[in-house]
Amino acid sequence: MADRIERVEVLVASPTRNYVTLRVTTADGIVGLGDATVNGRELAVASYLRDHVGPLLIGMDPSRIEDTWQYLYRGVYWRRGPVTMAAIGAIDMALWDILGKRAQMPVYQLLGGRVRDAIPYYSHAFGWDIPALLDSVREHQERGETYIRVQSGVPGLDKVYGVSKDPNYEPAGRGARPSEEHFDPGAYMRHLPKVLTAVRELVGPDVKLLHDAHHRLTPIQAARLAKSVEEFDLFWLEDVTPAEDQEAFRLVRNASTTPLAVGEVFNTIWDCQRLIEERLIDYIRTAIVHVGGISHARKVFALAEVHGVKAGPHGPSDVSPIALAASIHMAAATHNWGVQEYMGYPAQVHEAFPHAWSAADGMLQPGDAPGLGVDLDESILAASPYVPAYLPTARTLDGAVLDW
Amino acid sequence: MADRIERVEVLVASPTRNYVTLRVTTADGIVGLGDATVNGRELAVASYLRDHVGPLLIGMDPSRIEDTWQYLYRGVYWRRGPVTMAAIGAIDMALWDILGKRAQMPVYQLLGGRVRDAIPYYSHAFGWDIPALLDSVREHQERGETYIRVQSGVPGLDKVYGVSKDPNYEPAGRGARPSEEHFDPGAYMRHLPKVLTAVRELVGPDVKLLHDAHHRLTPIQAARLAKSVEEFDLFWLEDVTPAEDQEAFRLVRNASTTPLAVGEVFNTIWDCQRLIEERLIDYIRTAIVHVGGISHARKVFALAEVHGVKAGPHGPSDVSPIALAASIHMAAATHNWGVQEYMGYPAQVHEAFPHAWSAADGMLQPGDAPGLGVDLDESILAASPYVPAYLPTARTLDGAVLDW
Amino acid sequence: MADRIERVEVLVASPTRNYVTLRVTTADGIVGLGDATVNGRELAVASYLRDHVGPLLIGMDPSRIEDTWQYLYRGVYWRRGPVTMAAIGAIDMALWDILGKRAQMPVYQLLGGRVRDAIPYYSHAFGWDIPALLDSVREHQERGETYIRVQSGVPGLDKVYGVSKDPNYEPAGRGARPSEEHFDPGAYMRHLPKVLTAVRELVGPDVKLLHDAHHRLTPIQAARLAKSVEEFDLFWLEDVTPAEDQEAFRLVRNASTTPLAVGEVFNTIWDCQRLIEERLIDYIRTAIVHVGGISHARKVFALAEVHGVKAGPHGPSDVSPIALAASIHMAAATHNWGVQEYMGYPAQVHEAFPHAWSAADGMLQPGDAPGLGVDLDESILAASPYVPAYLPTARTLDGAVLDW
Amino acid sequence: MADRIERVEVLVASPTRNYVTLRVTTADGIVGLGDATVNGRELAVASYLRDHVGPLLIGMDPSRIEDTWQYLYRGVYWRRGPVTMAAIGAIDMALWDILGKRAQMPVYQLLGGRVRDAIPYYSHAFGWDIPALLDSVREHQERGETYIRVQSGVPGLDKVYGVSKDPNYEPAGRGARPSEEHFDPGAYMRHLPKVLTAVRELVGPDVKLLHDAHHRLTPIQAARLAKSVEEFDLFWLEDVTPAEDQEAFRLVRNASTTPLAVGEVFNTIWDCQRLIEERLIDYIRTAIVHVGGISHARKVFALAEVHGVKAGPHGPSDVSPIALAASIHMAAATHNWGVQEYMGYPAQVHEAFPHAWSAADGMLQPGDAPGLGVDLDESILAASPYVPAYLPTARTLDGAVLDW
Repeated sequence: MADRIERVEVLVASPTRNYVTLRVTTADGIVGLGDATVNGRELAVASYLRDHVGPLLIGMDPSRIEDTWQYLYRGVYWRRGPVTMAAIGAIDMALWDILGKRAQMPVYQLLGGRVRDAIPYYSHAFGWDIPALLDSVREHQERGETYIRVQSGVPGLDKVYGVSKDPNYEPAGRGARPSEEHFDPGAYMRHLPKVLTAVRELVGPDVKLLHDAHHRLTPIQAARLAKSVEEFDLFWLEDVTPAEDQEAFRLVRNASTTPLAVGEVFNTIWDCQRLIEERLIDYIRTAIVHVGGISHARKVFALAEVHGVKAGPHGPSDVSPIALAASIHMAAATHNWGVQEYMGYPAQVHEAFPHAWSAADGMLQPGDAPGLGVDLDESILAASPYVPAYLPTARTLDGAVLDW
Repeated sequence: MADRIERVEVLVASPTRNYVTLRVTTADGIVGLGDATVNGRELAVASYLRDHVGPLLIGMDPSRIEDTWQYLYRGVYWRRGPVTMAAIGAIDMALWDILGKRAQMPVYQLLGGRVRDAIPYYSHAFGWDIPALLDSVREHQERGETYIRVQSGVPGLDKVYGVSKDPNYEPAGRGARPSEEHFDPGAYMRHLPKVLTAVRELVGPDVKLLHDAHHRLTPIQAARLAKSVEEFDLFWLEDVTPAEDQEAFRLVRNASTTPLAVGEVFNTIWDCQRLIEERLIDYIRTAIVHVGGISHARKVFALAEVHGVKAGPHGPSDVSPIALAASIHMAAATHNWGVQEYMGYPAQVHEAFPHAWSAADGMLQPGDAPGLGVDLDESILAASPYVPAYLPTARTLDGAVLDW
Repeated sequence: MADRIERVEVLVASPTRNYVTLRVTTADGIVGLGDATVNGRELAVASYLRDHVGPLLIGMDPSRIEDTWQYLYRGVYWRRGPVTMAAIGAIDMALWDILGKRAQMPVYQLLGGRVRDAIPYYSHAFGWDIPALLDSVREHQERGETYIRVQSGVPGLDKVYGVSKDPNYEPAGRGARPSEEHFDPGAYMRHLPKVLTAVRELVGPDVKLLHDAHHRLTPIQAARLAKSVEEFDLFWLEDVTPAEDQEAFRLVRNASTTPLAVGEVFNTIWDCQRLIEERLIDYIRTAIVHVGGISHARKVFALAEVHGVKAGPHGPSDVSPIALAASIHMAAATHNWGVQEYMGYPAQVHEAFPHAWSAADGMLQPGDAPGLGVDLDESILAASPYVPAYLPTARTLDGAVLDW
Repeated sequence: MADRIERVEVLVASPTRNYVTLRVTTADGIVGLGDATVNGRELAVASYLRDHVGPLLIGMDPSRIEDTWQYLYRGVYWRRGPVTMAAIGAIDMALWDILGKRAQMPVYQLLGGRVRDAIPYYSHAFGWDIPALLDSVREHQERGETYIRVQSGVPGLDKVYGVSKDPNYEPAGRGARPSEEHFDPGAYMRHLPKVLTAVRELVGPDVKLLHDAHHRLTPIQAARLAKSVEEFDLFWLEDVTPAEDQEAFRLVRNASTTPLAVGEVFNTIWDCQRLIEERLIDYIRTAIVHVGGISHARKVFALAEVHGVKAGPHGPSDVSPIALAASIHMAAATHNWGVQEYMGYPAQVHEAFPHAWSAADGMLQPGDAPGLGVDLDESILAASPYVPAYLPTARTLDGAVLDW
């Protein structure tokens, strides 16, 4: 294992969405890939990697994965936060990719081997009104999917998170600045039970329904919502109140048995320690990339296992197929796994990142290629330069900023 | 009491199910019996007793029951767990049996005497579908039983814990390896209220209904189930989530007033201390054999008494009539007793272990024979050698191991 | 990775001490070794493996390490405890050994790679009186060791844990039954500060001193001892009160800043969850073999990492060079590692288990051999059949059993 | 066991001190004895037994010990408190005595048999000044005693608990009303360290020293005292603040590692539940008679065992040799026993209650007689009629009542 890292490259490209990709090459020619995408802050992460961390890696032993993680986390002083942790996450992924290729084994094997036959995923159904949503749900069911996230428009609101009047919805709108939308928690809270009534009626009891409140509610509103939708037997209710205030979830917890999921905005185990240890949630949604890679995510999920909490990571198209591969490999080898988010990618993304993993009939498979099993088509990336793109922002009806 | 232990024998036999029986004989010819059966790990306990602990007992004073317990627990360093504690439990039972025979008193008398006229037991009704279950419940009622555990098949599942398509259900299937079954918590959780509606309608409000979820649910699923069956006035809901995580029961506790029972997998007071002290359960189900015998079980139940928790020990046919005798004698003398599990035994088991205890009209009686009042028919045991037999294992629909 | 397990063998032999060794051979001829030794209960673990678990492994995919762990733990119902968990631990070790050999990598590499250059160990210095102890300490220092456990005789006591009048001390005395010793906590507690004064004077402030109270004290005695030795700046004070009562350590914790270590008697994460989460200890001592192998130990140490607790596993000659290899490989790859116990082995043990790991100048190295890097010399094992051997037992001066 | 209770008699007599003795005779002529003495309230307990409870017992089955306890405790509504619980305690003792005689076994055997060779006791040394105390201590040492309670006068105070200017000290002064004494906590707290310095210097480190503060101090004074005497290595500090406020002991606990004992004033497990469960004390001092007899004391001590607390019951001459016998039999069979209080009795008491138990060289032995092994000499009792006698009362220097 006396090999050395010889080259570290950062590629920023926008095959429909912006992705920051890290490529680490060893002296003996093994290439490891990592995803470092942070939606709307892509260039900062790229700079973090290119200007600061990449040069430090040159000459290091790529097999010292845990040591590199500790070096970049503890050794750096100004730690935590999405930029730092996505950069570390990309490096960590790339090193696991290299190790798997060197061992000629898929990464899931290095993590302890398969614990399940296939990994269920949940997909995104949405509609501006209930009939449109029902159409969307039907489409997902026709694809064999049984875990479906449902989001709908809210009467009286112009724009709503997770929903579009345009069926070709692109969540990260391109453009030099974020769009803005207004949100009325009361209207939303009164509307959701109607939505879920209609959907449950359509799909029957077996389909696993999920819903994302996307941090829009106060703790007591969240508690009220969780209680009001208890009868619809959600698989989970996501991001029901802003995630920083871990203790706030106790209020929600005490109000209902609706399963709670949160965590895509967390970057370290410290951000969710109390949530997990006091069993205030049921699914921890930390994305492998944003929580510092496989090495740290594994510790988060180990903590969750002891406390009856399952993994259900973030996985929409704002994480590249490389990060998704990391998540799928972890899912294959992690016992306390719930479900993986997967909304698919435009064709161009699949082509830009050819991958061994596959999705069919509502299930993901990691494939058997060594490492993470994802490749790059540099010509596509080169043809798709970075384009400024931002998530929208939200305000209350009186104009105050609301959590996105 | 200057007697000495002269002989220690371990008998492994399979009169329909495998049983590990300990026989201790004193210098003056008193014989004490103990059950050391651990389902599917019979030979390991037999070795523990035959190879390691039995020889140490030779020459010891059989009347020093508590000292022997402490010697085998504290003196052994590597303690706890089913194998160790079942071995200690068998010895403890045998020594109480000897003491009772020496005193010419039934063991319950040495434990403080009778506190109740009879010991109610609960039996197992099951059916692959609801009509079959109702038939089974009726049969139990006709036998005069008023505490009835109800388990039913689940639409869409091939095999379900506690239920068989075959009315001559044998829970521990013989064979060289465990069978496997798949479980869908959602299907089960949606079906149970229908089952309980039908059963409650049949039996009316007076019959005590019990149900065993057998460690299949996550904490939040458990909370939801407990809440969803609250209206059916269960006597208890058993093993609603895996038992190691004592704190998880708080979530269930906060969600409903459905009485909770757990504990057949516990081997020491430390495994249930928090559950009892924080009053997270209502019935502690530690089996006398698996929790180290009468001496330790008595301390568990004393702890429970202070905290408003009652005993309701494990007692299916995987514990021999000797261990059941120990449980019945404790029940006779322990104030905070709820109910004893009793599913009956095949005729061959009754013949192999002739016993003074009896079951009729839903009630158990310890009988008045000295000691535990159970004997051995060695010819039957000799004719029924050990046969490998294992409990099944369970997996989720995606193929991950689920708690059996 | 479509290989299958073809042969599972259990070897019990006594090259100076009894060891239970598991050998797993795959269809393509890779051999994995695991240690399943439980001191004084060797044959029970051997039966558990040979009679019950071994046959189940035949035909399984050796690369599904985590799944096999879950299958043998969750799938078995009667879980926890030293016999069960050592059996699972041996299998887990053997499968990691196989995976490493298949990948042609040392196991530490599969665990994330090296995080330190070398692994410090602590050794055992002892003396029947203080001058003899000082001689022993000097010898250890001359070998370059800087972490030294010091144990001494106690005036007025005939036998004392960890100490012998005979310099060729053999902790597990052979023979058909345990020897017995009497213990006086007061004499011990008053003597220890004198011992530490002399040792600290000899070695100066830099040497890391450890001491093991070996479960002999009540909680308040433990608190007093921890306080009374605070000035000697121990690296750790071990097993200061019986380990089952996790909450008891809070009393000790509140009384001093002496670092506390405990845990060699724990078999699952549940046994130490409160100790770790409430930060009542500083070092968790679970032995890799007794806590169910690398897969589970890794989760224990991950839990510890979040809570500022470090690993410091059990490692005297009652675990074989295979289990020690597993511990050293984990130490190489685990960031929150404190120190490894290592008391050396008689030459015959080194010969019976030729190993890639090495010890020199107070440091351990895992070596670079694939897998765990330990082999078997069957001729030595065959020539050294099992001999009954038991740890001693202890009693108080009034004759009551004391925790060994 | 179909025998019946035929006669219940209450004997109040004063062979030097007042004792209330219960005698229960069965139809087949077995006699059981119980002690019901409550210092200064003797006639009320006698009335409770003679007028209310005794008649209820006639015709009952004496072997239903636990049931009788529950009947008299739960069945009575106005429960708890010293009068009620001493009456129940006497009955419970008498029934265990009968059971032992019927089984022809000493009671300790029915409780699980011997766990120790002998039971250490502590005795009372006292002196009006330090030299007198040292003389007293020497006398106790000459008798072979190694656990010694030391109490001394306090400069400036006329009378002090536990001490007398008269060497023939009689703690319960006879007379129609209590004497009165004044107490100055400051003087006492400043003096005690001087006393202990002198005593420790005399006896060296090995002797176990105890001291009783007898409920005189506020919680913060108690904390200060416990800290100020920490260096003298007390075996225990007793009754350091009034016992009703269980939480108050946390303040003392946090201040030092001085072992704490309390509990002779407790009558049920509820009075000490928090003290034990939160490990705020080290020794629970409930007297077998005042805590409702053997049946309830056993549960208190079982609770204590789980929490690292030991039994150290009250046992001065205000409990009769019958109650002391009950305590000694429990001590013989209870693993978590610390020490038994024993101050001896005047010769007349030994003659009035001939007993199988014995005291020598600082150790108690239960003897081998069946039952509790205590008899009555009715002629002595008849010649010693009840005499009013009261414990003193205390006031602060400004004349307010202080806890006795």
